[in-house]
Amino acid sequence: MSNTYQLNPVGWMSQLSQLEVNQLATSASAEHYRVFRNCCLAVLNSGVEQDDSEALFEQYKDFDVNLVRRERGVKMELVNPPQVAFVDGKLIAGVHEHLFAVLRDMLYMSSKHQMYTELGTSPNNNEQDGALITHMVFDMLRHANALSSSEPSNLIVCWGGHSIRIDEYKYTKEVGYELGLRGFNICTGCGPGAMKGPMKGAAIGHAKQRNKSGRYVGISEPSIIAAEPPNAIVNELIIMPDIEKRLEAFVRASHGIVIFPGGVGTAEELLYLLGLLMHEKNADQNIPLILTGPEDKKEYFEAIDAFIAATLGPKAQQKYQIIVGDAPGVANALKAAKQSVLEHRQNNGDSFNFNWRLHIPEDFQRPFDPTHESMAKLNLHLDQDPGSLAANLRKCFSGIVAGNVKAEGVRQIQKQGPFELSGDPVLMKKMDALLQSFVAQGRMKLPGSEYRPCYRVKV
Amino acid sequence: MSNTYQLNPVGWMSQLSQLEVNQLATSASAEHYRVFRNCCLAVLNSGVEQDDSEALFEQYKDFDVNLVRRERGVKMELVNPPQVAFVDGKLIAGVHEHLFAVLRDMLYMSSKHQMYTELGTSPNNNEQDGALITHMVFDMLRHANALSSSEPSNLIVCWGGHSIRIDEYKYTKEVGYELGLRGFNICTGCGPGAMKGPMKGAAIGHAKQRNKSGRYVGISEPSIIAAEPPNAIVNELIIMPDIEKRLEAFVRASHGIVIFPGGVGTAEELLYLLGLLMHEKNADQNIPLILTGPEDKKEYFEAIDAFIAATLGPKAQQKYQIIVGDAPGVANALKAAKQSVLEHRQNNGDSFNFNWRLHIPEDFQRPFDPTHESMAKLNLHLDQDPGSLAANLRKCFSGIVAGNVKAEGVRQIQKQGPFELSGDPVLMKKMDALLQSFVAQGRMKLPGSEYRPCYRVKV
Amino acid sequence: MSNTYQLNPVGWMSQLSQLEVNQLATSASAEHYRVFRNCCLAVLNSGVEQDDSEALFEQYKDFDVNLVRRERGVKMELVNPPQVAFVDGKLIAGVHEHLFAVLRDMLYMSSKHQMYTELGTSPNNNEQDGALITHMVFDMLRHANALSSSEPSNLIVCWGGHSIRIDEYKYTKEVGYELGLRGFNICTGCGPGAMKGPMKGAAIGHAKQRNKSGRYVGISEPSIIAAEPPNAIVNELIIMPDIEKRLEAFVRASHGIVIFPGGVGTAEELLYLLGLLMHEKNADQNIPLILTGPEDKKEYFEAIDAFIAATLGPKAQQKYQIIVGDAPGVANALKAAKQSVLEHRQNNGDSFNFNWRLHIPEDFQRPFDPTHESMAKLNLHLDQDPGSLAANLRKCFSGIVAGNVKAEGVRQIQKQGPFELSGDPVLMKKMDALLQSFVAQGRMKLPGSEYRPCYRVKV
Amino acid sequence: MSNTYQLNPVGWMSQLSQLEVNQLATSASAEHYRVFRNCCLAVLNSGVEQDDSEALFEQYKDFDVNLVRRERGVKMELVNPPQVAFVDGKLIAGVHEHLFAVLRDMLYMSSKHQMYTELGTSPNNNEQDGALITHMVFDMLRHANALSSSEPSNLIVCWGGHSIRIDEYKYTKEVGYELGLRGFNICTGCGPGAMKGPMKGAAIGHAKQRNKSGRYVGISEPSIIAAEPPNAIVNELIIMPDIEKRLEAFVRASHGIVIFPGGVGTAEELLYLLGLLMHEKNADQNIPLILTGPEDKKEYFEAIDAFIAATLGPKAQQKYQIIVGDAPGVANALKAAKQSVLEHRQNNGDSFNFNWRLHIPEDFQRPFDPTHESMAKLNLHLDQDPGSLAANLRKCFSGIVAGNVKAEGVRQIQKQGPFELSGDPVLMKKMDALLQSFVAQGRMKLPGSEYRPCYRVKV
Repeated sequence: MSNTYQLNPVGWMSQLSQLEVNQLATSASAEHYRVFRNCCLAVLNSGVEQDDSEALFEQYKDFDVNLVRRERGVKMELVNPPQVAFVDGKLIAGVHEHLFAVLRDMLYMSSKHQMYTELGTSPNNNEQDGALITHMVFDMLRHANALSSSEPSNLIVCWGGHSIRIDEYKYTKEVGYELGLRGFNICTGCGPGAMKGPMKGAAIGHAKQRNKSGRYVGISEPSIIAAEPPNAIVNELIIMPDIEKRLEAFVRASHGIVIFPGGVGTAEELLYLLGLLMHEKNADQNIPLILTGPEDKKEYFEAIDAFIAATLGPKAQQKYQIIVGDAPGVANALKAAKQSVLEHRQNNGDSFNFNWRLHIPEDFQRPFDPTHESMAKLNLHLDQDPGSLAANLRKCFSGIVAGNVKAEGVRQIQKQGPFELSGDPVLMKKMDALLQSFVAQGRMKLPGSEYRPCYRVKV
Repeated sequence: MSNTYQLNPVGWMSQLSQLEVNQLATSASAEHYRVFRNCCLAVLNSGVEQDDSEALFEQYKDFDVNLVRRERGVKMELVNPPQVAFVDGKLIAGVHEHLFAVLRDMLYMSSKHQMYTELGTSPNNNEQDGALITHMVFDMLRHANALSSSEPSNLIVCWGGHSIRIDEYKYTKEVGYELGLRGFNICTGCGPGAMKGPMKGAAIGHAKQRNKSGRYVGISEPSIIAAEPPNAIVNELIIMPDIEKRLEAFVRASHGIVIFPGGVGTAEELLYLLGLLMHEKNADQNIPLILTGPEDKKEYFEAIDAFIAATLGPKAQQKYQIIVGDAPGVANALKAAKQSVLEHRQNNGDSFNFNWRLHIPEDFQRPFDPTHESMAKLNLHLDQDPGSLAANLRKCFSGIVAGNVKAEGVRQIQKQGPFELSGDPVLMKKMDALLQSFVAQGRMKLPGSEYRPCYRVKV
Repeated sequence: MSNTYQLNPVGWMSQLSQLEVNQLATSASAEHYRVFRNCCLAVLNSGVEQDDSEALFEQYKDFDVNLVRRERGVKMELVNPPQVAFVDGKLIAGVHEHLFAVLRDMLYMSSKHQMYTELGTSPNNNEQDGALITHMVFDMLRHANALSSSEPSNLIVCWGGHSIRIDEYKYTKEVGYELGLRGFNICTGCGPGAMKGPMKGAAIGHAKQRNKSGRYVGISEPSIIAAEPPNAIVNELIIMPDIEKRLEAFVRASHGIVIFPGGVGTAEELLYLLGLLMHEKNADQNIPLILTGPEDKKEYFEAIDAFIAATLGPKAQQKYQIIVGDAPGVANALKAAKQSVLEHRQNNGDSFNFNWRLHIPEDFQRPFDPTHESMAKLNLHLDQDPGSLAANLRKCFSGIVAGNVKAEGVRQIQKQGPFELSGDPVLMKKMDALLQSFVAQGRMKLPGSEYRPCYRVKV
Repeated sequence: MSNTYQLNPVGWMSQLSQLEVNQLATSASAEHYRVFRNCCLAVLNSGVEQDDSEALFEQYKDFDVNLVRRERGVKMELVNPPQVAFVDGKLIAGVHEHLFAVLRDMLYMSSKHQMYTELGTSPNNNEQDGALITHMVFDMLRHANALSSSEPSNLIVCWGGHSIRIDEYKYTKEVGYELGLRGFNICTGCGPGAMKGPMKGAAIGHAKQRNKSGRYVGISEPSIIAAEPPNAIVNELIIMPDIEKRLEAFVRASHGIVIFPGGVGTAEELLYLLGLLMHEKNADQNIPLILTGPEDKKEYFEAIDAFIAATLGPKAQQKYQIIVGDAPGVANALKAAKQSVLEHRQNNGDSFNFNWRLHIPEDFQRPFDPTHESMAKLNLHLDQDPGSLAANLRKCFSGIVAGNVKAEGVRQIQKQGPFELSGDPVLMKKMDALLQSFVAQGRMKLPGSEYRPCYRVKV
């Protein structure tokens, strides 16, 4: 016998027209629906620390979620949900909100934007495409009510590994605490590790400053949410359709970015951002970017810095600042930059909550689908302009993330073996060294499982 | 030299994407834009009592409104606006809100729904059309934030003349006061007279009950807002594209309806509602409907009642209750019905804030364009089913309202003389008598001008 | 059979200790209790316009109010209360609040301050007495939560007659409206006429500016509340023990004062204030004071102005500004002064919500008890310093107010005939002329009863 | 050169009369002021974990705090304050609030209650004394705004050691988390260890349930606040004058009590509460009491339970429930009792936020001053009624707490050596065993210092 729970809609989803409910119920393909169901399951496991989505799904094979149509809108019906999400038979309020965020972003917004796409784009009109993608990113943040903050210029995006050591984790908490004390809100990829620490720290900082409107924004994507389910602190959950839109959401919504130690995902994020910031149209952009970690992680950042120097060059190095072992220093640097970020927006007539002026080349916006073929074809040579090289390196790391933890990627690796990467020998050597250091430092997967590389560097 | 004022967007309009701003700026045709400009002018004259839109427009020939595009969205620029809307050089906050409601409903929503129309409808698919119209009505109320009321089942729609006598006006205030004391909110057509009195009264009632969240919802339409500009109390302004969608918005949003003395517009509203309520699909609808006025207006309601009896029959008479000279009685009757209205919604899974189950036949939804030709062609014979008769009578009164106060209608009458109405002699005689009584009682126009009928009944 | 209603305490009164409840229940003497009961009755008649307290009390002879002690505090029990205060058997929320304001100010605060008096004062220590009186005034405003306004410098005290003509009333509404549009809150004596108009106007002004935190502060006293029950708009009611503390509360809480046409009460208020402002210790005080009325009331203010010139001299005339027929002008003048009022407080380290620095001589603080003897003894000669003369004239007018509408004063007049006033013949002639003009203009009592003077000027 | 910071008053202290400011500034004796200064210093060290107040004070010898009188009230001036309380030169908001709580409770309330005492009590009127003490406890909670909670019956008092092991600490967090998930608020003695853990856990629980109004009430006393400064989570700080009033505040404000492992202080609390609950007048009291700790602390509670059985007997044992290793079980037990606690208050007309009906015998209310003499004189024999025995044992443990961590007690011990305890040999043996187990388990002092007993049991 199965246990079922019906949930009333909250937020934007509590006001749907019958037309929209119909679209919701009919638009999702079987595959699309399976992904939606898995995301719901991940959200119901909020706070459970495990990055093996297969294992998670295995436990809850008989879980299902149905949409129940009523005259007044739509309810969600959970079948055999994990009991960890319930207290005295009642779903935890935050999880309830997150489930409807999943419904909103994965079914409602996707059917809405399909319409836009049908209407608005011709296959050859690239300029238009980019504008449409940005519109979609904006529209998703808007429906998630993430753009109406009354106190502007205070959202700090924190990137870093989901699998980090306890001293690194503590340091991310300290940085979050110092940011919270100074009135900053936190946005992360919404999983464990460096995605959780800054939020936890900021929550204490906000409490000490009697700030009850602290925001802990988690931006995820369907293919990774199961491996990195939203932590307990996230109070705004947004699920972007793919990593490219997720990255665009991060950078356009942020007023400053902190990068903690991490693995390939973090490297992808850094390369994405450097690729943008080096673009000539972004010469006047003002995005404070700080790489930071505990005192004894100095070498880690030196290695990253050296890799950037060797690949993208010294111009890229000017775009960030490295601070080690100084949590208040990180927060002070962002506080010091805040006023100029705000003025930059004002002077350019730009929004305080969405960086419209930032130019994102199409190559960074279009989804990269990592397959053995596309990975093998990546142009990983040094004789290209730094922007293109950054774009290609970003894709390369993105593919490795997929092979490590995203369900589709993991499946491909299981079936066809590791991705093969080839290119300029000098570059390949450097990449190999960097990747091996991530493996050695345990940054590829959460402890408890041995890491088997999903890639092979052909040197 | 012209005075210009730039206004920052508020509400939904403060979060537009660049794509939407582009659409906004390019979608409006010259004619569409002229209507938009006139609505802005009407809103800037909020609270000025005058129903001669020509005279109003004449005074402010050099007024204009521009949309100013910025990275972050859109500003409105007012050129030579009426000074009555300003205090110490600053636009009154309520007027500011209303201007952006005009922009939202007239440009943003219209361009949004054009897209829906292009996608969703085929010319022959009538069922679909009706659903699309209802979706649009819902979507407009939703964007106006008019559907999220936390305390449900308390919105009373008040209809009645814009030109009523002082004793009638006082009575509408008393009814509003008693409704306000009992926690009801008020929705009207948002102009003077019976559209203002209930709001003023309710404001005092709410104040005495220390209720700070009183809602005074005004639903207008572009073609009438200049003749009936929103009164000072309206704190939610919505401008539906035409009278048919406006009427649909009224009835779907309401939890009870009060009809005060009025002229042809009020007759149109009553016939519209009776036409719906007599439809077999609406047999189980629960919409409390009360006709009321001061003690000495007994004959007025007897005349209306007799007209209904003679045209739509006794079944129609069962749908309403007449109460004269008893303001607390009106409020008590609605209070008594409130619980059952709420239960009816609950039992049917319907929304508390939007009556989805109410069936509105296409003939009531499709815009009726009153011209000399369409008015002459109306089937005004008694040998049709009461629903059709109600629909035709509604259109007939609707046309007379247009000829009296709507710009386009007034122009036609000026050019081609009065509309000619013909049909069953018995019916025509009754109509003539009713219309003449409206004229005699001064219900056609505000005092100060002599009324010249815009119609001629061919008996 | 009697109807009884039990009311739960609200505000400060909802958190009493058992000790305080005991004091409350035992401290009030029979006489004290009778006054308390009458005030409750007056509050229950909120909004009823009648200034004949005898007639009011006559109607509700069987009304009573009891205090019901419970472990957790005190309830009020109403016996046979006027039904006008109830809606569907439930007491109107605002009246409920007012009743507990009466309990708070008349029983709780009085027993609290009796204690202070016993401890703190010796009969000969006048300096101390004054400080104690000011402390008490402050403490009563504090317990009424009237001092915590977050937006400072915006409370305008409006004085003027309870019995004024319709054109004057409309003008007070206009001034209130213009004040409300500019963000000012209103404080009056809380009855009808000029005490109601500015509040009504401001309520509309606040609504148009979407200001939901408008304050309508009514400061009354036990002996007059029955004759001038709080109007429907008052949302903060405070009952000071006597006219002297009431006047002190007005001037210390205000950030500007407007005087509309009125009778002897208004004259008392003007003389009180001028007496203070002419004191050398108040030379640097910044209290904007405006005398205003409709255009055709120019002569009225000229007469007042001439009386001031002839009695207190031109230095007194410099303390006020007369503006006629210009409601926006009045509001603009106060707006213009606002910044300097605020700065004056800041520069002197004074509170924004309570003018501590204003010096109030003992003679203005000590209660004046008008009897035939004390009235006859008043020094009404011109050969005294203007401050003393102002104090004496203030007392004289105060006594006439008592003889007109305060229960105790009315009783004395009924028993012993009119007060006899004597003094300098020139002065007496001027006073007589002024008083007779008040009579002629109907400012002594509400219409409907003939005015029989309660004084006789011995010229 | 000294650094000074001026602080504007917040909360109740922002609205003082000049009379009150004068009292504040003059009432405190030099000794009283020294204690006040030390409490401020403790609060400024919020979150620093150290229970050696001497060491703390030593570090900040040049710290001082002054009251600065202004017309509008009082400011605090900090001289050379610890920089840990500042962020970018600005005092942390929560610490700012706490400093004014110290001022309110230690100077303002104490001078207020001195007045009460002078007026209200005669030395022989014991009944009166008790009522006055309760009034004072109530009044202090009221001024701290701790009694106005809108959601009643949800304050759980958590008692337990300030020095506990990491596994015990984690368990207190888990219990707090489960309480927070169920909507309970937390009240503790406001220091580290078991006083901090439940608050931290509840904060996460509240966040997950989107509850932004979580209360973390810390009730301290001047003589212990330096040893146990308020942790970072406390958002309501109240400082009762002595341990007896502090205990009364705990039990009257609570809706349920949880006791975690602790040392003598915790034993004092348990004995105090059992003493009350065994009183015949409290036979019908409904105060859920749960002793709980991690699974492996079973023996600890068995020892306590055995000590209670041997001293107060089986009737005392019925007053509590022991639950080990089951955090959700603790929360569920309190949730299950909640409704009946609420009903008990309602049925008895008692306050939801202050348990007036609980009878507290004078012997538990009067301050016990532990000296070598008073400790030696304690009646520690078994041949007395359990209530008296509980009272005496409570005093005995209270004295040991003083000797361990309170400044005055520590000084006495340094000067005169350990307290000597004597009594019934059987009882003394049991006590000695219990105390030695506390020593052995490290519960007497925070780690880092060796514990030297402040008592000697004469067996």
